[in-house]
Amino acid sequence: MDIAHAATEKVLGRIDADLDASLERLFAWLRIPSISTDPAYAKDCRSAAEWLRRELADLGVEARLSETGGHPVVLGRSDAPGKPHVLFYGHYDVQPVDPLDLWETPPFEPKIATLPDGRKVIGARGACDDKGQVMTFVEACRAWKASTGEIPVGITFLVEGAEEDGSKFLPEWVEANKNELAADLILVCDTSMWDRNTPMITTGLRGLVYEEVIVRCADRDLHSGAFGGAARNPIHVLAKIIADLHDADGRVTIPGFYDGVPETPRHVLERWKSLDLTPEKFLGQVGLSLPAGERDRMVIEQIQSRPTCDANGIVGGYTGVGAKTVIAAEASAKISFRLVGAQDPDRISDSFKAFVRERIPADCSVEFVKHKGSRAIQLPYDMPALTRAKGALSEEWGNEAVTLGTGGSIPIVGDFQRILGLDSLLVGFGLDDDRLHSPNEKYDLRSFHKGTRSWARILSRLAE
Amino acid sequence: MDIAHAATEKVLGRIDADLDASLERLFAWLRIPSISTDPAYAKDCRSAAEWLRRELADLGVEARLSETGGHPVVLGRSDAPGKPHVLFYGHYDVQPVDPLDLWETPPFEPKIATLPDGRKVIGARGACDDKGQVMTFVEACRAWKASTGEIPVGITFLVEGAEEDGSKFLPEWVEANKNELAADLILVCDTSMWDRNTPMITTGLRGLVYEEVIVRCADRDLHSGAFGGAARNPIHVLAKIIADLHDADGRVTIPGFYDGVPETPRHVLERWKSLDLTPEKFLGQVGLSLPAGERDRMVIEQIQSRPTCDANGIVGGYTGVGAKTVIAAEASAKISFRLVGAQDPDRISDSFKAFVRERIPADCSVEFVKHKGSRAIQLPYDMPALTRAKGALSEEWGNEAVTLGTGGSIPIVGDFQRILGLDSLLVGFGLDDDRLHSPNEKYDLRSFHKGTRSWARILSRLAE
Repeated sequence: MDIAHAATEKVLGRIDADLDASLERLFAWLRIPSISTDPAYAKDCRSAAEWLRRELADLGVEARLSETGGHPVVLGRSDAPGKPHVLFYGHYDVQPVDPLDLWETPPFEPKIATLPDGRKVIGARGACDDKGQVMTFVEACRAWKASTGEIPVGITFLVEGAEEDGSKFLPEWVEANKNELAADLILVCDTSMWDRNTPMITTGLRGLVYEEVIVRCADRDLHSGAFGGAARNPIHVLAKIIADLHDADGRVTIPGFYDGVPETPRHVLERWKSLDLTPEKFLGQVGLSLPAGERDRMVIEQIQSRPTCDANGIVGGYTGVGAKTVIAAEASAKISFRLVGAQDPDRISDSFKAFVRERIPADCSVEFVKHKGSRAIQLPYDMPALTRAKGALSEEWGNEAVTLGTGGSIPIVGDFQRILGLDSLLVGFGLDDDRLHSPNEKYDLRSFHKGTRSWARILSRLAE
Repeated sequence: MDIAHAATEKVLGRIDADLDASLERLFAWLRIPSISTDPAYAKDCRSAAEWLRRELADLGVEARLSETGGHPVVLGRSDAPGKPHVLFYGHYDVQPVDPLDLWETPPFEPKIATLPDGRKVIGARGACDDKGQVMTFVEACRAWKASTGEIPVGITFLVEGAEEDGSKFLPEWVEANKNELAADLILVCDTSMWDRNTPMITTGLRGLVYEEVIVRCADRDLHSGAFGGAARNPIHVLAKIIADLHDADGRVTIPGFYDGVPETPRHVLERWKSLDLTPEKFLGQVGLSLPAGERDRMVIEQIQSRPTCDANGIVGGYTGVGAKTVIAAEASAKISFRLVGAQDPDRISDSFKAFVRERIPADCSVEFVKHKGSRAIQLPYDMPALTRAKGALSEEWGNEAVTLGTGGSIPIVGDFQRILGLDSLLVGFGLDDDRLHSPNEKYDLRSFHKGTRSWARILSRLAE
């Protein structure tokens, strides 16, 4: 342990000393406009992949470009016999830059800028998402190699080039390269910190059930004067269904909906409570102040550890300007559920359909269109790798790392789970004000520097 | 009375003998393509007006064209000192004819055709709506004049040329010509019979309140993964409002909504019951079978003598193809009420708004856009002119005339009530299969012939 500690200290010193050179390397990568959605940048995407391949080769990692239906994947492997083996995932592609005129400096000319509050930041498209984040990991590996001659764990590098375009060819590619991707654990660097001083590990991703419901009543649109009072109105039928989906306490009323929803351990709940995410803070940013969800839950639970139901869209009858006295023949809504824990998407989908059918009058009909379905992902809070990474982060930042779910989904993590059967540890150093996908994207210099140091510590701990 | 009876018999005989000539006159009018909405037919509209003016002048009626902001009004006057004076309303304009290729014979070349069931019908655009119906009244007057030298009541003829275009200049014109329009009663010939053997007087028109409701929650569209569970969803708020508008018995729940709703006299209810308008008959035509309205009311009440509430349109969030995980910033609905009896549109509008506001969370807002408002119109069932017209119709058709409201609105009747303070007696001879506004419009020869005879009898009765 002492030897490991000494080695880590040496590596951290190396990272500090090498910071300027690390930045130069990152800047070189940021200068390549690897916009994945625009075919005009296909060559640049390949250049960015090739650039990373060379960097990995420099570290002694056996690396190559592997073709997909789209941009190539950078695939590298560094073995560490007798040590755990991790699969590192990131992406080298970036978002488009329009509107270009809103950028204060050109998006592909990275610069260090100083914010009014004194923070130094790296300004460029991809500075955070995801080149900057990927390089925290690569530079940590480099420092280990340079200081000690080896990286403490075996690593397979998988850095794709189409994440901003939906990773559409990746699941197929992962399936095809399954054997090469064998590992004990996946590390992903594409997420954020809780705040500037609090590191975070994303330990859960809500699942999703997304159903479209089309209610049909009369076989044509009707005049509301001639038929109003006798003819069933599909908007009323649909409104009643949506209204019935929640009770007065904000709970979803579908029978069995909460089956498989786990209770969060008390110590985790206590840590969440300490973060003090008040309704004013969270909802205030979008002009709201009163939490709409389950009455007995904190906002921080409502948005990530509790399942939800939302109507994402509704339409029926006349929606143009002015008035039309019509009773529509049909009305439809898109209704989705965010799932947690062991909630079963198929069972929830079935229960929802039964719930709707019970509310369809006998002379009307309903059609369902299924759009998406995925299980939630939840790391066990007592998983050793999680405990180790948490310890490493807490040490680096001098503040206990938060383990928290994310409300939305990161599809590739579900694919990894499904295809490779592996858990993903999501550690990232982005901040809320990084302007991902927007003009003037930035990455705090501190995120880059301490992020690299964090990975150096995590690699050491994972090797224990 | 005997003398009046003898005179009426003579007039009826004259109508029978003159039928072919009457038809020739109607055909001449039908040949003029007086389509009011299309400026290309403005000259034809004027020709149709001028044609009617000459016909009226032939009857000894002092008639002229009176200008409006659009097509002219035909205004004629025939006095009968010491007798009641009626204002007759109809329109000489017709609907467009497209799609032209669906017409079996050209729309402006009127013909007598025989239906498979043996009925003889007049086929042409305007055959029923409203030239054929107007001519039943004009021919009745002609027969009185020809047989007895006089029309039994004083009449002001008001036949407009823009009813199919919303009568938009007429209220203003009526206001400006108020004094010339003084009368005891208005007669309108633009409605239908209950069925082929049952004449009908339309005694009520439901009023209307039409409100648009826009519910606003967050100040932007939100990601349902990031905010779902904590952020208020305006579609849910709106759905709850719409769901709350009716109770389980189909009654509207807005406080005070039923204030001013009259109970229908028992003998009228009995007559309605005898018409046996089953849910299968009424709703079956549009693919439904279960009445959706107030549980304790017959369908025939639900559609004309009871007030209703319908959402005519709703929209919010993502309504395109596929799935989008969004919580919308706003959602809106168009909600209308059909009113009866003495229900006050302003009070109902206010109560509705209060009802909605009570259901808007404190951190959300609501905007209302008012579209229309009109009181219901209801003739007293014991009004002498109604009783007389009913007697005349029952006599002509050998079947008790039905007095019934109409579910929709006929705006001009409300305008007459408001501006002139006059009740309108709506008597017409259209049938459900007349294909008004559609290709192959027709008017049964029997409707034209017995319609003319009906008016002859009504004029006699009104003079009593």
